[in-house]
Amino acid sequence: MSFLAELRFVTSNDHKFREAESILKRFGVNISHARISYPEVRSDGVEEVALNSAQYLSKELGPSFFLEDTGLFVDALNGFPGAYSKWALEKIGLNGLLKLLEGEGNRNASFKAAIALFDGEVRVFTGEVKGSIALEASGASGFGYDPVFVPEGYGKPFAELGEETKSGLSHRRRALEEMVKFLKRK
Amino acid sequence: MSFLAELRFVTSNDHKFREAESILKRFGVNISHARISYPEVRSDGVEEVALNSAQYLSKELGPSFFLEDTGLFVDALNGFPGAYSKWALEKIGLNGLLKLLEGEGNRNASFKAAIALFDGEVRVFTGEVKGSIALEASGASGFGYDPVFVPEGYGKPFAELGEETKSGLSHRRRALEEMVKFLKRK
Repeated sequence: MSFLAELRFVTSNDHKFREAESILKRFGVNISHARISYPEVRSDGVEEVALNSAQYLSKELGPSFFLEDTGLFVDALNGFPGAYSKWALEKIGLNGLLKLLEGEGNRNASFKAAIALFDGEVRVFTGEVKGSIALEASGASGFGYDPVFVPEGYGKPFAELGEETKSGLSHRRRALEEMVKFLKRK
Repeated sequence: MSFLAELRFVTSNDHKFREAESILKRFGVNISHARISYPEVRSDGVEEVALNSAQYLSKELGPSFFLEDTGLFVDALNGFPGAYSKWALEKIGLNGLLKLLEGEGNRNASFKAAIALFDGEVRVFTGEVKGSIALEASGASGFGYDPVFVPEGYGKPFAELGEETKSGLSHRRRALEEMVKFLKRK
């Protein structure tokens, strides 16, 4: 499948790139890193953000490329920080999120990833993992909210489970797998 | 000045419209309400958000109209919630903001408004008011963060000072005044 050799992942986040690279390698898909910044629309939905950005970039870049938008949606905070997760982390940090949940009984949350692939037209693939927000941050692997997000059925946050385990079950893994299924059907 | 009769304020926020209407009336400027939704770019800066939205709308609406973007920038939270103030309020509420500042000695904050006017080309006018975040919410006038924002030199939040006082000193008032100065020079 020669097209796979030219598949670019557009992201300015090195962690995301390495994670995606390692996941896709297992499926026999090689990617290259296109470190390009692009505008994002304001929207609560990661699908809409990814779709719009890919449509915008499709005019500048030829096929094939994909990009990704991820959000952590905390139930007790009406879905905060959602599609603004990266921004919120820069502003208030993990401590800010933990502070917002102090005294809160419901710590349910979900991680959602939306991947927009442009291969002549834009297609969106999504992945979700349910879980909860830990009482405190722990662990050193991964990035972003990994030290506080405990996936359902595990008793530890992503950052303690290690990259191998995270890559097997994460929202990103699920969305990437959907994309791979599509690419292999082509 | 006949052009002033046709000046539209594009906003879906009735509070903002009424506030602007009452402020502009004192300057002899009448406005009409264009209740139109429009896309906003992701940006930390209210100027950039207003500018982009006005450029977008200028293709759909003729001159003359203006729109406004406002943000509350809290120093100890690295400028959170900033240009995402409305969104953050919907998600975490005033209580969320107060929770984030619990135990924080520095409660300094500023309100910034950016008005983008389209009269054939887009011009941006800004206004800022410095102040601090109260320990708890109080007062019933105004909207948004008014119950917790205490402007410098007053000992009470906007929502306790009343609309009259707020209209005399607010970030919105200052930005509108800059626009009026420009319109009257024309």
